[in-house]
Amino acid sequence: MQKKKIGVIGATGYTGSEIVRILSQHPGVEIALITSESRAGEKFSDVHPFFQGIVDDLLYTADKVDDTELDLVFLALPHGVSMDYVKRFAGRDFRIVDFSGDFRLKNPKVYEQWYSKKHIFPEGFRDAVYGLPELYADKIRDAKLVANPGCFPTGAILSIAPLVRAGAIKTEGIIIDSKTGVTGAGIKASAVNMFSNVNDNFKAYGIKTHRHTIEIQNILDDVDGSLAPVQFTPHLLPVDRGILTTVYARPAEEAGWLDVASGSKATGSTEAATAAKVVASMDSGKKRLEDMYRDFYDDKPFVRICEKPPTLKDVRASNYCNIFVDYDDRTGNVIVISAIDNLVKGAAGLAVQNMNVMFGFDETTGLGHVPVNP
Amino acid sequence: MQKKKIGVIGATGYTGSEIVRILSQHPGVEIALITSESRAGEKFSDVHPFFQGIVDDLLYTADKVDDTELDLVFLALPHGVSMDYVKRFAGRDFRIVDFSGDFRLKNPKVYEQWYSKKHIFPEGFRDAVYGLPELYADKIRDAKLVANPGCFPTGAILSIAPLVRAGAIKTEGIIIDSKTGVTGAGIKASAVNMFSNVNDNFKAYGIKTHRHTIEIQNILDDVDGSLAPVQFTPHLLPVDRGILTTVYARPAEEAGWLDVASGSKATGSTEAATAAKVVASMDSGKKRLEDMYRDFYDDKPFVRICEKPPTLKDVRASNYCNIFVDYDDRTGNVIVISAIDNLVKGAAGLAVQNMNVMFGFDETTGLGHVPVNP
Amino acid sequence: MQKKKIGVIGATGYTGSEIVRILSQHPGVEIALITSESRAGEKFSDVHPFFQGIVDDLLYTADKVDDTELDLVFLALPHGVSMDYVKRFAGRDFRIVDFSGDFRLKNPKVYEQWYSKKHIFPEGFRDAVYGLPELYADKIRDAKLVANPGCFPTGAILSIAPLVRAGAIKTEGIIIDSKTGVTGAGIKASAVNMFSNVNDNFKAYGIKTHRHTIEIQNILDDVDGSLAPVQFTPHLLPVDRGILTTVYARPAEEAGWLDVASGSKATGSTEAATAAKVVASMDSGKKRLEDMYRDFYDDKPFVRICEKPPTLKDVRASNYCNIFVDYDDRTGNVIVISAIDNLVKGAAGLAVQNMNVMFGFDETTGLGHVPVNP
Amino acid sequence: MQKKKIGVIGATGYTGSEIVRILSQHPGVEIALITSESRAGEKFSDVHPFFQGIVDDLLYTADKVDDTELDLVFLALPHGVSMDYVKRFAGRDFRIVDFSGDFRLKNPKVYEQWYSKKHIFPEGFRDAVYGLPELYADKIRDAKLVANPGCFPTGAILSIAPLVRAGAIKTEGIIIDSKTGVTGAGIKASAVNMFSNVNDNFKAYGIKTHRHTIEIQNILDDVDGSLAPVQFTPHLLPVDRGILTTVYARPAEEAGWLDVASGSKATGSTEAATAAKVVASMDSGKKRLEDMYRDFYDDKPFVRICEKPPTLKDVRASNYCNIFVDYDDRTGNVIVISAIDNLVKGAAGLAVQNMNVMFGFDETTGLGHVPVNP
Repeated sequence: MQKKKIGVIGATGYTGSEIVRILSQHPGVEIALITSESRAGEKFSDVHPFFQGIVDDLLYTADKVDDTELDLVFLALPHGVSMDYVKRFAGRDFRIVDFSGDFRLKNPKVYEQWYSKKHIFPEGFRDAVYGLPELYADKIRDAKLVANPGCFPTGAILSIAPLVRAGAIKTEGIIIDSKTGVTGAGIKASAVNMFSNVNDNFKAYGIKTHRHTIEIQNILDDVDGSLAPVQFTPHLLPVDRGILTTVYARPAEEAGWLDVASGSKATGSTEAATAAKVVASMDSGKKRLEDMYRDFYDDKPFVRICEKPPTLKDVRASNYCNIFVDYDDRTGNVIVISAIDNLVKGAAGLAVQNMNVMFGFDETTGLGHVPVNP
Repeated sequence: MQKKKIGVIGATGYTGSEIVRILSQHPGVEIALITSESRAGEKFSDVHPFFQGIVDDLLYTADKVDDTELDLVFLALPHGVSMDYVKRFAGRDFRIVDFSGDFRLKNPKVYEQWYSKKHIFPEGFRDAVYGLPELYADKIRDAKLVANPGCFPTGAILSIAPLVRAGAIKTEGIIIDSKTGVTGAGIKASAVNMFSNVNDNFKAYGIKTHRHTIEIQNILDDVDGSLAPVQFTPHLLPVDRGILTTVYARPAEEAGWLDVASGSKATGSTEAATAAKVVASMDSGKKRLEDMYRDFYDDKPFVRICEKPPTLKDVRASNYCNIFVDYDDRTGNVIVISAIDNLVKGAAGLAVQNMNVMFGFDETTGLGHVPVNP
Repeated sequence: MQKKKIGVIGATGYTGSEIVRILSQHPGVEIALITSESRAGEKFSDVHPFFQGIVDDLLYTADKVDDTELDLVFLALPHGVSMDYVKRFAGRDFRIVDFSGDFRLKNPKVYEQWYSKKHIFPEGFRDAVYGLPELYADKIRDAKLVANPGCFPTGAILSIAPLVRAGAIKTEGIIIDSKTGVTGAGIKASAVNMFSNVNDNFKAYGIKTHRHTIEIQNILDDVDGSLAPVQFTPHLLPVDRGILTTVYARPAEEAGWLDVASGSKATGSTEAATAAKVVASMDSGKKRLEDMYRDFYDDKPFVRICEKPPTLKDVRASNYCNIFVDYDDRTGNVIVISAIDNLVKGAAGLAVQNMNVMFGFDETTGLGHVPVNP
Repeated sequence: MQKKKIGVIGATGYTGSEIVRILSQHPGVEIALITSESRAGEKFSDVHPFFQGIVDDLLYTADKVDDTELDLVFLALPHGVSMDYVKRFAGRDFRIVDFSGDFRLKNPKVYEQWYSKKHIFPEGFRDAVYGLPELYADKIRDAKLVANPGCFPTGAILSIAPLVRAGAIKTEGIIIDSKTGVTGAGIKASAVNMFSNVNDNFKAYGIKTHRHTIEIQNILDDVDGSLAPVQFTPHLLPVDRGILTTVYARPAEEAGWLDVASGSKATGSTEAATAAKVVASMDSGKKRLEDMYRDFYDDKPFVRICEKPPTLKDVRASNYCNIFVDYDDRTGNVIVISAIDNLVKGAAGLAVQNMNVMFGFDETTGLGHVPVNP
């Protein structure tokens, strides 16, 4: 079979190098073009020396797209810049996977509100599909433009979607407390990602205002439709890669999964039922939740339901999302914890997974990397 | 003035070395005895080489207490061991600051439930005072036995107490998401604190069951009296020192602080009030909360109310607790974030602060360490 | 082609999990048996949860080797234990790659001197081949027993061998200053590899006495034959993986490469030659050395000669060895710096490279991992 | 006694904040002025939030020096900038401790050669004293201008000076392999000090060309007078603070300390002497070196001769320099390893030590910080 021809627009950042790392080991594609406006004329391995002898391709400016045969283009560009290219490539045959936030939200109006920026290509929203194959594989298959999810939303949505879909939790009071590695902040040096500000340190940031809040909200709304505003708080970890997300939610009383778990519906007596529920739920609340998640992700190769809380290294440099669910009988809270590698499942790996779906490849092609641990 | 004579029982761990570090620079005391059952006969600086030339005292077994004149003894021992020594020293004149969890809880029954261990000295609870001077300075002043708080409870209680005291939040639904450095796990080598398991990694642990949960619950109950079970989830950071705690709570409707903030009480119209509240609270919810905290900690030298979210290095190697408070108008949540050094404000520094109160020293004596950053 | 059947003896350590990680993605082999004496009966992914859903094979005791068809066995065991298994498997058909130090040295006598241990299978030395394909591919091809090199020796020997082979440096005064990640110390928790002892810290260890000293010495002696004792000093880095080695040596006067570089031989005048040498060598000393290394490693796919000093992340999780060479005209020293991943090129990757040579596979089969950076 | 009035010129960097940290806890001084050209008008604690409530002084521009009474000024400025201020303050009464490299070298010519910059105040060299009290306390006492040593030179010179002074090593072939924490690169964000480039990573840099090479050379020349060019190679550690330096040198044959150590002079027989030397030196070479160092640093409060190789955390956040010396009988090399905190003993602490000498304070005043470990 002829290999698909791939272009990577914007290859100097972490996402750019990570997509090239994965594509260079993918059996179904060839990298036909890598671009960088700032480093055009140099070799890719001059910018990222660890590719020496592996990917020494010359970098071109994006103009080179015009005379290159391409089946699919990855836009590894910042938000606000990507939309220019999506617009510019609108008439071209190749398909696009866009890493930026420019086409992920419900509509241009919400975008402008949260990104404080005029959207120059609102038409793009019509065709754009949110690139989370665990939820939207059918739409992705035929999409011309896939909006690759944000790193936090990937972890958060995969953590919460089964509960929302099942109506298992109250629509109010969802707390999403996320902790991310530094590469999420990009490759540009600043006080935020300086070693001495990050090492042996930890902090919250973007409280109340982080743009991924609305992305999580929009997609969960799409899954269910009536979610109250979720609380999302990101924190910065002294690690390179990985996002661990801890979610707190309350069971929907009408959902009955706790009752089913405890068998209280059969008891007939409220008081006895309550007591039974307490005992049983300690045994089976977690079990019921795990079943719910296993069903939801039954045929999804990259989601692993874990018996113990996951660690970042359990998924590092791989496309897995590890999920742990539990029910705290004492407090009445559902707790969900997920771990992903923000550069892989939260960016480049997910993008290749989308590409695989789009090309009709097996979803795992070229993504069989075992996590690197330690 | 004659210096107070101090004993440190159990000096080989992190807390032991940290209490010696602080005491060795404290102008009002002299270290009269340092003990270690396992390393007796060696020099303190053999166990902790960084003390070479500073504290080269010989280590004795705890029997040496019997023929040593002492004004106060720090018990830097594990829970379950401390109670033996408290019992043994019950007839002695010197006062005791106990670092363990043996006398922190409401009563022996709660202890036995959460620590799965018979308490051999229940009488100790009668005299024990919870050693958080920001709340209990008056009782600490004359206490014979001070139960030095756990590291997580210190951060969590200082974060929440002003809200609970003021009745500003609902008693239900408090979420405490904490992240700690590795030294909290003690000095004994295990898979938990191995470099390759911690470095570039992150995870939650002790979900639903961590013993500090009930300590936080007991003390906040004591502040207010009617708190629903709090959710406490600790996480393990790849840092040596520090605990960052993120608290989520919901405003008590009857408390009125949001209304006061927005001036809605004066408007007379519910709808207008609501609209006004929204706008005003964005401006002033955070401001009102900060005022509430500044009032509560007005004369407390080690609590700093911060305009920006604190980082662990803002307090590292110091006795400060930095607190940030905010109100999210979109979700209706109060968010509180605090940072402490778990070995100082969460252990040895707090113990010296207690000692200062007990001896009538200025609370800050010997605790003027500027945070070490970076 | 039928896949080769592989056994991994001792799979609970870092080397064991790393060899399984690489083998599980290798197209020419199947893992037929994984053993662990301490965890037999459990799943491999119980011991290493990041393999969940990837390698869930049951662990057996090594007895299982007796009724398993195997083409090659990796012994991922400590020194002193490996020799028992090599002896025990002496009559079997399968080939062996041994990770330990038991068969790497010149003879059993040297072993006993440096390892302070009686060797129970001295006969093994007769057949054992030192598994560094860059030097010994021809012998490895037909070897029954391959002694996989130590992590430090791999980096050090690859750094120095071209100079020794060419007679380009003096045989006296070679200094090897190495810095390693923590995984080199193994998976057993101890004070040595505790996070708080390693993080934000650095130290030298094993000064004058590290066992890898004699391994480096023996192999370089084999390359050249007359080397004076080399100085080897390892240091412990706060990183998981990687060894960076800095070598200092002095040019052999008779070697003439500096002269050739400067063209001084043609000048006829010593003084002029010296001046010319100074100027020219600044330009070309480094260049000549690079050429020497490029020639030596011409057809070696995993050695990369780099223009800039390598970093550990340039090779992380890959089988590359990056080498930088330079000549300091001011001091007259040759400086060589190399970087490897101690678990890959310094252990499991190198072992698979040996296996590829032994089976006649392309040397790079299953080893095409792009370094994971950052 | 009236407190001395101190000015800190350039307080936004790491050295600036560290000098303020130490001065704010020093009993003999008051901080009379802190300046920053870029942040003038803000509070010091706005720039360094961990000082909130401790040092909230306003920042001024350096012009403020003109109308401020000052006894001593610290210039925490980059090289090339400092000289402007030294020139400008030449007529003022206050004394100056300059952190930059502008007045450390032998003369302006050497400066211009290594710093590639014209020196605008060569007259300054006449009065400047190299601020290493362990070597130059007598000159520092009365100095108007003290050139505070570079961080690498401090560790390297303290490591080597006793050997050079005693003529114990050959003047040729000294190798200085240093490893530094990231703060040595300053507070300005760049690719060099980005977390993801430093964390879990390691590299050499400035090979052959680092400016501290000539500073080490100049001062050691001043101690002895005939040193051949030393080799200095810095490496970048993933730690905040600390420099570990490993030095390799060869014993001077005529020095006789090895013979004295072995008592061979008394044997009369060369062969027996050699054998005796080998045996005895294993026992006593290290011992003799330690004595040599203990004598040299007999009355120096901040140098600690250690029996085991030091770690960075043994000195972190303190003014100590820990030194380990050894002799390798097998190779004939002397090995010296030293550890300092680059921001304290390698910068701000050393500067305060100089200030103490200049003011006739006890050398340790305000510098009694116990290392912070872990």
